[in-house]
Amino acid sequence: MKDFVLKGNICYSKSKNDLFTQKNAYVVCVNGESKGVFAELPSQYMELPLVDYGDRIIIPGMIDLHIHAPQYAFRGMCMDLELMDWLNQYTFPEEEKYEDLDYAKKAYSIFVNEMQKGATTRAVLFATRHRPATELLMELMEQSGLVSYVGKVNMDRGATEALEEESAEISAHVTYGWINAVKDKFARTKPILTPRFIPCCTDELMEKLRQIQMTYGIPVQSHLSESPGEIDFVHFLRPDNAFYGEVYNDYDLFGKNDDINTDVKTVMAHCVWSTAEEVELMRKNGVFVAHCPASNMNLSSGIAPIRKYLDLNMKVGLGSDVAGGHSDSIFRAMTDAIQVSKMYWRYVDQEAKPVTFPEAFYMATLGGGEFFGKVGSFEEGYEFDAVILDDTSLAHPQELTVLERLERAVYLGIDRHGICAKYVAGEQIIF
Amino acid sequence: MKDFVLKGNICYSKSKNDLFTQKNAYVVCVNGESKGVFAELPSQYMELPLVDYGDRIIIPGMIDLHIHAPQYAFRGMCMDLELMDWLNQYTFPEEEKYEDLDYAKKAYSIFVNEMQKGATTRAVLFATRHRPATELLMELMEQSGLVSYVGKVNMDRGATEALEEESAEISAHVTYGWINAVKDKFARTKPILTPRFIPCCTDELMEKLRQIQMTYGIPVQSHLSESPGEIDFVHFLRPDNAFYGEVYNDYDLFGKNDDINTDVKTVMAHCVWSTAEEVELMRKNGVFVAHCPASNMNLSSGIAPIRKYLDLNMKVGLGSDVAGGHSDSIFRAMTDAIQVSKMYWRYVDQEAKPVTFPEAFYMATLGGGEFFGKVGSFEEGYEFDAVILDDTSLAHPQELTVLERLERAVYLGIDRHGICAKYVAGEQIIF
Repeated sequence: MKDFVLKGNICYSKSKNDLFTQKNAYVVCVNGESKGVFAELPSQYMELPLVDYGDRIIIPGMIDLHIHAPQYAFRGMCMDLELMDWLNQYTFPEEEKYEDLDYAKKAYSIFVNEMQKGATTRAVLFATRHRPATELLMELMEQSGLVSYVGKVNMDRGATEALEEESAEISAHVTYGWINAVKDKFARTKPILTPRFIPCCTDELMEKLRQIQMTYGIPVQSHLSESPGEIDFVHFLRPDNAFYGEVYNDYDLFGKNDDINTDVKTVMAHCVWSTAEEVELMRKNGVFVAHCPASNMNLSSGIAPIRKYLDLNMKVGLGSDVAGGHSDSIFRAMTDAIQVSKMYWRYVDQEAKPVTFPEAFYMATLGGGEFFGKVGSFEEGYEFDAVILDDTSLAHPQELTVLERLERAVYLGIDRHGICAKYVAGEQIIF
Repeated sequence: MKDFVLKGNICYSKSKNDLFTQKNAYVVCVNGESKGVFAELPSQYMELPLVDYGDRIIIPGMIDLHIHAPQYAFRGMCMDLELMDWLNQYTFPEEEKYEDLDYAKKAYSIFVNEMQKGATTRAVLFATRHRPATELLMELMEQSGLVSYVGKVNMDRGATEALEEESAEISAHVTYGWINAVKDKFARTKPILTPRFIPCCTDELMEKLRQIQMTYGIPVQSHLSESPGEIDFVHFLRPDNAFYGEVYNDYDLFGKNDDINTDVKTVMAHCVWSTAEEVELMRKNGVFVAHCPASNMNLSSGIAPIRKYLDLNMKVGLGSDVAGGHSDSIFRAMTDAIQVSKMYWRYVDQEAKPVTFPEAFYMATLGGGEFFGKVGSFEEGYEFDAVILDDTSLAHPQELTVLERLERAVYLGIDRHGICAKYVAGEQIIF
């Protein structure tokens, strides 16, 4: 049943600065796509089944451009180290466990179950380097009804012996097998090429990933310029590169490349310390930035210059980055994005105006949604993802506009307990 | 019934750096005071009624050293301005409404009801400048079972005409009447002298408040060095003062003063930009700092140097500062305190080590609790405030320690939906 009408207080981003709201309006879904928002229901849709959500708020689903499924187990813990030490001390030992499919099943079932209940409708996921556990995660994600890209991680150095892959060759071989097995298996769950980050990938592995990408044309995700210690290490490993992102670009895993006529859909998490050259290459290549403000605070990484990225019309979305981020809530990521941008303005650059609420909402929906195609809006032709918010638990003595209620719902994080329905690509998620 | 035993996983701060946890332990309350925590129940308490909370977590109640009750109505909204503009545009117009007792009743009932359900057991509140609404708030707080200081605000300049008091004389006159009416009226709810901040208080008013303080010996709360624009304005108003806090001190409203042998229990919110001299005077005078990290981000104020205050052994607690802060959760304030301290370390002072989880928990309990006496701990002799946390909604595949579960509960904010019981001074709060 992908043809229906929802009625309620509708909010969505028309553009970066235009957060549109309409009280008691109709949004129409036909064949899984939006036909637009209407004050009065057009006659041609009168026969469609209608769900009246009354005074509730209807928004597009949240897009999480960066989340590590295996790290969900230790979300909200282990927040006392910077990135490289945090990886060694907490993250790699946890990820080793996913060699054991029983553990993976237990852990990933918890993760997927929670994702299903939240406001996120689409996500870009890191799994671990293990193929069986990654396929299991993909099966669970498919069953959840959410849309996702899932990456088996490639990493042939720089981690614990148990977690590193034995060689670039083996890493590539397993990846070929994995992609062949999953690329056409699922309707909603697709593979994404996932070099962990340069400190964990030899040049030989990167070269093989380039070949894999060219063979299958699948998108790419990784980490970029997150933390000063990490960046120093990349400079040490690749002294001839002018900047970190250039390494990915050297292997054609960094967005569009007009020289060889490729367009690799790429998302890079963090981009906190990107140099001017790196930013310019990302802009030119259409690389997506997954802004992960909570993680960047928790691991003492810093604050990404999101005002600059927005003003350059770069592609920017939000990532929860569990478990560098402690919460899978993209509502929380919106709040964090606004808050850290104010500290950036105060301490780093008083020319960089704080991120506004409409801009944060844009990043959480339309900005990140573009990675999935026409996603993140109720404009005609967009895939129909919707979340229905019940904010009656938030009492107030005065009249509020829909926009004020939405802002409050986001700041107070009612995505944890205030979601009364959720639709992905026109199908209702039952949780 | 103030004599009983609770059993469960007990956590509390023994000191700034020592967050003690004990699985399946007993904590004993006799006559509203703790008798301590025990692995085995001592024989003299065997006859007391025992509540077994099983695998749940038992912590002291949270202390909120700074919250504006009338601003609760617009929590999570209006986050686009700095302090002085935010006051003029959003806060003063909302506070004007508390002239109307019907509105005040509606708004304060919502506020008190929510406070009752949260993890906070004691709070230091700003009301508005209106005496009737302030007394109403005090009655509602008393009924809630929570312990609080409530301040009728003094403000005779610098606001809207409707909100300013007509003169220093009238402000003082109303304040005398209010204190006389409430000082012995309630068991749990006490008045606190509340000059809004220097921009809203003439010298004449400050002089009268000094006299009132000396007459009644009640504690004092105000705001200090929150935002650069505010501080500039204070320098303009009081050019002869070396620093902002000196103005309060000139009127003997700034902690201990050995010269005149007074000890005015004082809490100052924010202290983001306190100069070295100001910090030294606060330390010397034993002035409490109410650290309000969310508010300081939301209003782009900055980051208070809490590492310094902790290392100087100053008195520091946490404040939600609703509605500069968007949430009344002190769990959230703990997370925020840790996160902003990491950004302070990264961008301001790499000598200032980030706040640890045990330190944040200390500030939220024992640190702020000292403002109320022997409060914020389960050590023998402390008033018995406790919150029982049910974290079963947070699933995990691995074994976790009690400390890991507590940290996760705080980061993920389960104080909103995971509190299964709450005790204040030995009495259970029914909500």
